[in-house]
Amino acid sequence: MNDPQGYSTITANLGVKDDTTDFCVVVSDRPTAVAGVFTRSRFAGPSVTLSRSVVADGMARGVVVISKNANVANGAVGAADAAELQSLAAGLVGVEATEMVVASTGVIGRVYPMARIRDGITGLTAGAGLAAGTGLAAGTGLAAGTAGGGCDFDAVARAIMTTDTHPKIERAVVGDATIVGVAKGVGMIEPDMATLLTFFFTDAAIEAPTLDALFRRVVDRTFNALSIDTDTSTSDSAVVFANGAAGTVDLTAFEEALGEIALALVLQIAADGEGATRVIETTVTGARDAAQAKRVAKAIVNSPLVKTAVHGADPNWGRVVMAIGKCHDDTDIDPDAVRVWIGDDEMYPTPATPEVLDRASAHMLGERVLIRADLAIGDAAFTAYGCDLTDGYVRINADYTT
Amino acid sequence: MNDPQGYSTITANLGVKDDTTDFCVVVSDRPTAVAGVFTRSRFAGPSVTLSRSVVADGMARGVVVISKNANVANGAVGAADAAELQSLAAGLVGVEATEMVVASTGVIGRVYPMARIRDGITGLTAGAGLAAGTGLAAGTGLAAGTAGGGCDFDAVARAIMTTDTHPKIERAVVGDATIVGVAKGVGMIEPDMATLLTFFFTDAAIEAPTLDALFRRVVDRTFNALSIDTDTSTSDSAVVFANGAAGTVDLTAFEEALGEIALALVLQIAADGEGATRVIETTVTGARDAAQAKRVAKAIVNSPLVKTAVHGADPNWGRVVMAIGKCHDDTDIDPDAVRVWIGDDEMYPTPATPEVLDRASAHMLGERVLIRADLAIGDAAFTAYGCDLTDGYVRINADYTT
Repeated sequence: MNDPQGYSTITANLGVKDDTTDFCVVVSDRPTAVAGVFTRSRFAGPSVTLSRSVVADGMARGVVVISKNANVANGAVGAADAAELQSLAAGLVGVEATEMVVASTGVIGRVYPMARIRDGITGLTAGAGLAAGTGLAAGTGLAAGTAGGGCDFDAVARAIMTTDTHPKIERAVVGDATIVGVAKGVGMIEPDMATLLTFFFTDAAIEAPTLDALFRRVVDRTFNALSIDTDTSTSDSAVVFANGAAGTVDLTAFEEALGEIALALVLQIAADGEGATRVIETTVTGARDAAQAKRVAKAIVNSPLVKTAVHGADPNWGRVVMAIGKCHDDTDIDPDAVRVWIGDDEMYPTPATPEVLDRASAHMLGERVLIRADLAIGDAAFTAYGCDLTDGYVRINADYTT
Repeated sequence: MNDPQGYSTITANLGVKDDTTDFCVVVSDRPTAVAGVFTRSRFAGPSVTLSRSVVADGMARGVVVISKNANVANGAVGAADAAELQSLAAGLVGVEATEMVVASTGVIGRVYPMARIRDGITGLTAGAGLAAGTGLAAGTGLAAGTAGGGCDFDAVARAIMTTDTHPKIERAVVGDATIVGVAKGVGMIEPDMATLLTFFFTDAAIEAPTLDALFRRVVDRTFNALSIDTDTSTSDSAVVFANGAAGTVDLTAFEEALGEIALALVLQIAADGEGATRVIETTVTGARDAAQAKRVAKAIVNSPLVKTAVHGADPNWGRVVMAIGKCHDDTDIDPDAVRVWIGDDEMYPTPATPEVLDRASAHMLGERVLIRADLAIGDAAFTAYGCDLTDGYVRINADYTT
């Protein structure tokens, strides 16, 4: 499948932490509509702060990402370093600093090795390069191929990884346009810090306000439906770029395609969750409204007792009704009206026979465990995604030493 | 230390699940003031429903507890069984059914073996017994000693255990009065179901409304400050009885003594948490109000990444600021003003030296890990209690099979 037109990529190792690729830039050869959704953490990093202002007017040129260091909780030094990184990356590809989205993931509370980053990016400017014909000013034209220049989104997917065990990338075609999406994040969890980054690039022509509205709808039912644990990142960033190189597309088809890519990435993230062995999908139907359905679906997918039961393939549906019961402010939830299924089999209120429990246990041995609850209140529904809780998760996060 | 006057206890095995003690009754020889706090779960069991109505008028005679089966999510059958248990226990000790608090813990979704329970309690009525001089009607007087009759609160503490590894009981003296408190609960977690029960008995004379008010204050800063995981029981019950046999006491001294007993039980529960190796105590100061302090303290103590860091004795303070950042609706939290300590050492914002990190790590190897955060907003404070997250927790909850 082709990549979207008019984008160039640069990936390199700047020695941020080790010798793996830790730097990447994606730039559009023309101004591009942009929309972004960022973490709500009170400890949001300076990269997030800068990116919020970049996407505020709905137009940008590209994004620069540093992995292996989140540059969070570093005070004034961290803010200055993030701004310098933005300027260096903008200079590298000949655009304005205020047109470059910035993202960074990794350990919290450690400052960037700015000398190495500065020298590294300067070296790229001199020698490395973008593919020919990207329409960038000759002055910033970089020899194709060097340091991962040209247009290689697979290299970008690898460059933004931290403890991910494999790169996460999806593509789709809508009319004459193409969408490519990349994501990183071991669930919401890493030994260093919970972090999720995802970027989408398309050559479809979509007005910024329209792009923003449909992107928020897509993120709400995909990335915002994902919860590996209950910890919220200080660096979460989801950004979509639409540079219009391929002209207009059917917006409904585009939103559908973007949604499919986003969901596929979400499932890749859940499956790659720290120590995870199974994806958990919890669907709540019959809710008063979408907010209630989402609240209950997340209560189930986040319950440590449900997550461990799934890990043990134990059809202990009592833990599911417990999790539903936790939503005690939803006083319209009637325990006698609620129904619960694991896989295709009803667990509650109809007492499950040993045969039914065996089928449910067999279902829980699969890679994707479906838990469904109907609240019998209204017509709203929501599906949340997560993964099981394993001793692998504990070992990875307990044994890591700062 | 003496036990409070005017209470009698019965403990027995009725074969609810195995041959361990699974039944107990504590009864006062006179009407007693009572106050109770119960789970807010939408799936609260019929025992909780019955008990709420018993304590509603502030007067009762005693409590009956069945362990090893929660009798939750059993529909109309469960409701009828709970009511019959209440009547049988009341008959056993010659009081009105409406004067008996009922509690039950264990697996969800299984009905009581009512035939065994009925025969067992009838057998006790015939043969077993209460100690002489309890002032109960002769018709219900039971031979002392048999089936744990008499007044043995240690036996009660054992009788209400499910997967607890040891009984939890505390005593205190206030003037001429005595308070004894018992609790069960492996954290808020059991292989079957999260459940916490705690009962306090005193011979102090305290009016019901006063007792209710001070008990809620005590529970709010002790049991409501405890969170082993985020799962809420369907059976949580905390009840205090004050039968007045020892006359009036200084109320301030009483509330202080009751608070000390409750906190001691909370720490016993945290230490006995499923798989737990350490107690975590998170204190938040400088908050706008107590609610904000409690919200932030619980965000820290509940964070899986903080809990695993404590398990690994890893002074990864970045996870603490992440957890504080999760309280994103508290927009008055200024990341640059927040301070974080582990043990006695500041971790943020002053960068911790390797020596300081070593001291913090050494502190985290102890049995009780102190994490403190100051929000620099106001003067409110709150301390929350929990435990570390270990692979033992995962194994216990994943390997258990229904």
